[in-house]
Amino acid sequence: MSAQPNADEESQAQPLLDPSLHRSLSNVTSQVAIVGSNVCPIESLDYEIYENDFFKQDWRSRGKVQIFQYIFVKWLLCFLIGLIVSLIGFCNNLAVENLAGVKFVITSNMMLVKRYGMAFLVFFSSNFVLTLFASIITAFIAPAAAGSGIPEVKAYLNGVDAPGIFTLKTLLVKIVGSITAVSSSLLIGKAGPMVHTGACVAALLGQGGSRKYGLTWRWLRYFKNDRDRRDFVTCGSAAGIAASFRAPVGGVLFSLEEMASWWRSALLWRCFFTTAVVAIMLRALIDVCLSGKCGLFGTGGLIMFDVTSQNTTYHIKDVPPVLVLGVIGGLLGSLYNFLLEKVLRIYSYIYGKKPIYKIILACSISVFTSCLLFGLPWLASCQPCPIDASEACPTIGRSGNYKKFQCPPGHYNDLASLIFNTNDDAIKNLFSKDTDSEFQYSSILIFFATCFFLSIFSYGIVAPAGLFVPVIVTGASYGRFVGMLVGSHSNLNHGLFAVLGAASLLGGSMRMTVSLCVIILELTNNLLLLPLIMVVLLVSKTVADAFNGNVYDIIMKLKGFPYLEAHAEPYMRQLTVEDVVTGPLQLFNVIEKVENIVHVLRTTGHHGFPVIDERSHSESPVLFGLVLRAHLIVLLRKKAFLTTAVRADSDAFRHFSAMDFTKRGSGNGDKIEDIELTEEEMEMFIDLHPFCNSSPYTVVETMSLAKALILFREVGLRHLLVIPKISNRSPVVGILTRHDFMPEHILGVHPLLVRSRWKRIRFQLPRFLKLF
Amino acid sequence: MSAQPNADEESQAQPLLDPSLHRSLSNVTSQVAIVGSNVCPIESLDYEIYENDFFKQDWRSRGKVQIFQYIFVKWLLCFLIGLIVSLIGFCNNLAVENLAGVKFVITSNMMLVKRYGMAFLVFFSSNFVLTLFASIITAFIAPAAAGSGIPEVKAYLNGVDAPGIFTLKTLLVKIVGSITAVSSSLLIGKAGPMVHTGACVAALLGQGGSRKYGLTWRWLRYFKNDRDRRDFVTCGSAAGIAASFRAPVGGVLFSLEEMASWWRSALLWRCFFTTAVVAIMLRALIDVCLSGKCGLFGTGGLIMFDVTSQNTTYHIKDVPPVLVLGVIGGLLGSLYNFLLEKVLRIYSYIYGKKPIYKIILACSISVFTSCLLFGLPWLASCQPCPIDASEACPTIGRSGNYKKFQCPPGHYNDLASLIFNTNDDAIKNLFSKDTDSEFQYSSILIFFATCFFLSIFSYGIVAPAGLFVPVIVTGASYGRFVGMLVGSHSNLNHGLFAVLGAASLLGGSMRMTVSLCVIILELTNNLLLLPLIMVVLLVSKTVADAFNGNVYDIIMKLKGFPYLEAHAEPYMRQLTVEDVVTGPLQLFNVIEKVENIVHVLRTTGHHGFPVIDERSHSESPVLFGLVLRAHLIVLLRKKAFLTTAVRADSDAFRHFSAMDFTKRGSGNGDKIEDIELTEEEMEMFIDLHPFCNSSPYTVVETMSLAKALILFREVGLRHLLVIPKISNRSPVVGILTRHDFMPEHILGVHPLLVRSRWKRIRFQLPRFLKLF
Repeated sequence: MSAQPNADEESQAQPLLDPSLHRSLSNVTSQVAIVGSNVCPIESLDYEIYENDFFKQDWRSRGKVQIFQYIFVKWLLCFLIGLIVSLIGFCNNLAVENLAGVKFVITSNMMLVKRYGMAFLVFFSSNFVLTLFASIITAFIAPAAAGSGIPEVKAYLNGVDAPGIFTLKTLLVKIVGSITAVSSSLLIGKAGPMVHTGACVAALLGQGGSRKYGLTWRWLRYFKNDRDRRDFVTCGSAAGIAASFRAPVGGVLFSLEEMASWWRSALLWRCFFTTAVVAIMLRALIDVCLSGKCGLFGTGGLIMFDVTSQNTTYHIKDVPPVLVLGVIGGLLGSLYNFLLEKVLRIYSYIYGKKPIYKIILACSISVFTSCLLFGLPWLASCQPCPIDASEACPTIGRSGNYKKFQCPPGHYNDLASLIFNTNDDAIKNLFSKDTDSEFQYSSILIFFATCFFLSIFSYGIVAPAGLFVPVIVTGASYGRFVGMLVGSHSNLNHGLFAVLGAASLLGGSMRMTVSLCVIILELTNNLLLLPLIMVVLLVSKTVADAFNGNVYDIIMKLKGFPYLEAHAEPYMRQLTVEDVVTGPLQLFNVIEKVENIVHVLRTTGHHGFPVIDERSHSESPVLFGLVLRAHLIVLLRKKAFLTTAVRADSDAFRHFSAMDFTKRGSGNGDKIEDIELTEEEMEMFIDLHPFCNSSPYTVVETMSLAKALILFREVGLRHLLVIPKISNRSPVVGILTRHDFMPEHILGVHPLLVRSRWKRIRFQLPRFLKLF
Repeated sequence: MSAQPNADEESQAQPLLDPSLHRSLSNVTSQVAIVGSNVCPIESLDYEIYENDFFKQDWRSRGKVQIFQYIFVKWLLCFLIGLIVSLIGFCNNLAVENLAGVKFVITSNMMLVKRYGMAFLVFFSSNFVLTLFASIITAFIAPAAAGSGIPEVKAYLNGVDAPGIFTLKTLLVKIVGSITAVSSSLLIGKAGPMVHTGACVAALLGQGGSRKYGLTWRWLRYFKNDRDRRDFVTCGSAAGIAASFRAPVGGVLFSLEEMASWWRSALLWRCFFTTAVVAIMLRALIDVCLSGKCGLFGTGGLIMFDVTSQNTTYHIKDVPPVLVLGVIGGLLGSLYNFLLEKVLRIYSYIYGKKPIYKIILACSISVFTSCLLFGLPWLASCQPCPIDASEACPTIGRSGNYKKFQCPPGHYNDLASLIFNTNDDAIKNLFSKDTDSEFQYSSILIFFATCFFLSIFSYGIVAPAGLFVPVIVTGASYGRFVGMLVGSHSNLNHGLFAVLGAASLLGGSMRMTVSLCVIILELTNNLLLLPLIMVVLLVSKTVADAFNGNVYDIIMKLKGFPYLEAHAEPYMRQLTVEDVVTGPLQLFNVIEKVENIVHVLRTTGHHGFPVIDERSHSESPVLFGLVLRAHLIVLLRKKAFLTTAVRADSDAFRHFSAMDFTKRGSGNGDKIEDIELTEEEMEMFIDLHPFCNSSPYTVVETMSLAKALILFREVGLRHLLVIPKISNRSPVVGILTRHDFMPEHILGVHPLLVRSRWKRIRFQLPRFLKLF
């Protein structure tokens, strides 16, 4: 294709950008986000290798012992993460099964003697109390523990530091809250909270517990940086999925595909190690349960929903219904995401009014859920027990395929078997084989509609709540429905249709591929189904992608996290770096007056400042490097001042230890407001030479934004300095941060790009060409 | 830890680097590598976004239709890759099973009538002819098809362009050679060649076939760049593993963990799509075979070595033998890699002498193999058939657990059941259940030793040869042996021990984690074994990593590919960029004389040249950008010259189409030697303004090498410009390429670092500090 002859004229006639205008605008994108259920200011994380003399010296001073210690402790911590997360996951399951189990056993026993009112009261009040407890501890002790936590952890792994997500308080509330909320029969999952729990355990271990509680060790200082913490959190989230689904490989892939923004094979290996520990621990704990010591938890095996024994011969004629399932999954999945976003918006509006509304809402959802779960089964007619049933019919206790509910002896209530049950048991029932005639069309449809809407309304409550299990149960129900419609036209039994249905809704809502595939395989242990699961995931993801995004990305965006995408938007290729850099730029001299530093730190919120050197042999000022706010605060706190503006000798940093410069957990760093200086001190100087990052990454101002984004994102930067094309001006023209790459900011500075967001635009010639 | 006071003095007394010395040295690392069995010059690939006016104009001129076309064609090509690779994989299996099957059937029939000599002759000569054929076509038609091809493809995906690996000739020889070589009973695999085949199919489709044969389409020009080609090749190698092991998820993970150097989630999704196509195609083709139309291929199912039905209750007491297996796997795996490297070194020395030796060596290996396979079973004593055997005993035909060989009726030869069989059938026998008493200790040991050494000697022959299957069969044999030793002390049967043994040797030799885990699961369909497989892989990889590297990395290094690791070596943190940059630097002016360009292109091998502008408004020269050799050659070929050294008007590039600047397949680009210019033309000028990459990535000379490597590797660069700290010198002080980051080069320039390669060194202060 040849260049269009009038492209230039067009762009000349219609300038989209006025370079003189936008340079004075400052970045107005939000620097706050909703963490859990609280609005907090957020920061970026520091992944760049910070090369200053002090750190170089420190690094060189590390001997073999320290390096060995570092490697050994890092693996040991991964082992501990796996161990602790698997124990938490196991106890979580045990507690939920026993709490919910006791509730169902008592209720069922009462119903057996026809004390229906009393049964409802017990069911209702236990659910209410559990929900109330979960929402109170979440709202008042650790608001950051609300929701699944996956969006927060995903944002963290992208370089966004949300305060409070990795504290001991959050961890405890997340665990206890998740157990009570799930036990209260709300339609919420425990996988998401487990991911957050795993990440939290990892982060806490990495920083050696909490400094507040004196739980920190000197030899953990090597891990007190954002790079190592990122590795631990990635391993922790993998362990979380591994523990909640007993799916170690699925866990690794989940944290690779969905959570992590940066990945390297060393990290894969570390994650694999962590989830292997989880797998082995779970296998050992199952041995404990096999001896019958786990109460109502029973003797659960390694595979949660085993469908191995089901027939899996299928032929070409089975493919069309599977394709239909995929399409339905895609449509429903995108609808699910759409509705969830709307509901979360309404909730966050309500929460903004009065904090007590959070509790009220959670309780109303619980009341509503209890009424539905207890009331709906009365709509279903009692079915006579099949003669050739493979298990007891009707069952009276906690689980089982055929629930008696209100039915006469020898009959069962099919809707109660699904709805008046824990979610795990409902999934087992839906996936079960040889039960093709168990459910009526109406029951499955009622169950599907209940799950679909209840899960959307339940997710946003102020309690730890996941999305995986609700989506699986909803998907399984319409999968089973499709299976019933297809009936004998297919070789696949209805249980396998339910598996494929669950896969399709997962694909349509979460949009993962390999990790979902492996998680479903590990949940069901049926590899022969693999080609069909792949087809379903392909179709549902493709269909759903046409409408909206991944559910976690939607929630993350809604919460306001500045997530940095790996790919550049098309309009970013039309803009140069210069077009988005906002001023004014705060510079320091390499030997700077204390007063100036304090003033700048107090009046701006910036976290990195370019340092220039005007007194070098060059006639024009030279870019010396970049200094971080956190390091300046350390210098001010330690009062490492000079009386005159001359360069200090090279051992000026003897007074500092590397411990002073370690990165603390989010929100724990010192504030400039806490530092008090006398007037005399204010007149003194600081020599920044040894503390500056003397080789920051730079880009030339004429580089396209897309190309700068690649550098920024791939290397994982927090600050990117922009240098001029022609060097006799100031040695640095601006500084790019995460917020400068956000579409909201760019489109705010260049509003004319909005309408051309999805189409190519004719654009003016790059500015530097006009200089010549 | 505080800084050590005498660190500086030490480094002063013993300067490791003399800055004045090394700047004149040029990079002496090898720019050639062994591709297949041939020594070829290699180049780097261009992944950087090349921002010049011409490309910007071209990019802007692409309308919605072109973008849609690009997306649609890219998915279509992935679909075609999956389709073609699955067909090739299926035909490959079919051909091997039938070729080898006929051979074994004829031999067995002759042995049944005691014509042992004749049987040997048939076996021997058919193997000989097949090997001879495979080695002749490989050596004389496409030497790049020799070996597994995985190291070549892995290097390609790291950015190293090895000529000839992706041609139609190579593809055909790879397919035919692999079929004949595997059929000839050599102990080699077909998975590696399938990966190369898949990658080759992908690369050929991406460039629209071969320009030489007129098989190229204009609308494929958007894919004629190294970034898109990299995506296709990644998908192709995933499809290769998926087709050879019927393991679609394993294929995706293999190409993620082992092959790809750059990964993004969009690519995961694309790979998943490709392997899903493979999985579905294979499932459909299996339906064809179920109706008995595949000859001796039989009715092979979707799972190659199904062990689902085996008991998998195991407890804590089963763990110690599994750990032992892991340790043995690690030791044997590293020994395997060590010996393989030595043998390959000897082979490459032999090949260097005379090309005909390649054929002779292949034939000798074939003769040796035939003698061993036919001769060794005579050492084993005949066993009476078990009464409760689950299948026919003895079997006479091609496969089966109990081979008759020379035994009297009612007896079987256990060694022949393993050794006188195809590799796939040997693996099936080793993995089989209810056969715990089938094999004698001596037979298993003989089989193990034979496989171990034969596979090491066979890999290096000049024919397509993989490593996966030999490693699996070797590992399975000692796994079974350990199982027999443990005997009734374990709940696991011997077949499962064989699976774990195969996992341990794979882990010890290939050092993958998640992908091996999934591949083994997909091969054996037994998820309950997962925790044990994870343990085995963890232990064997850990043990083996203590000795040497991954087998593919060893081979790649041996072949001389400049593979760029993701992590920096410790000594790279001690060096600055300035310390490794080598001169002399070739610069061009932004309006340069044709003669100078031709002279530089003819006398150097560089592929990128900095362009400076001395006539701008600045008093000192300005770095304008970077121009590529390939683009200069296009300009010279098109004779886009100016008579005077003034800037051309902006429509100078109307004479060019984007097609001119597309990146051709390796080795197909024009050469400077092919361009003939008159003396008049030599005196003219070229305006490089519109053709320069005006925003190349730059680093400051004082940046540490480790930090520059991160940028270079993460962003995937070919050239990285080094700019001075103080700007009144030349605007560019050097250019870094892949070769400058190679340990051989760095340690060559700084020989004193060699002994400190593994320990921390005390190093002089960064040079720029001395300037002040």
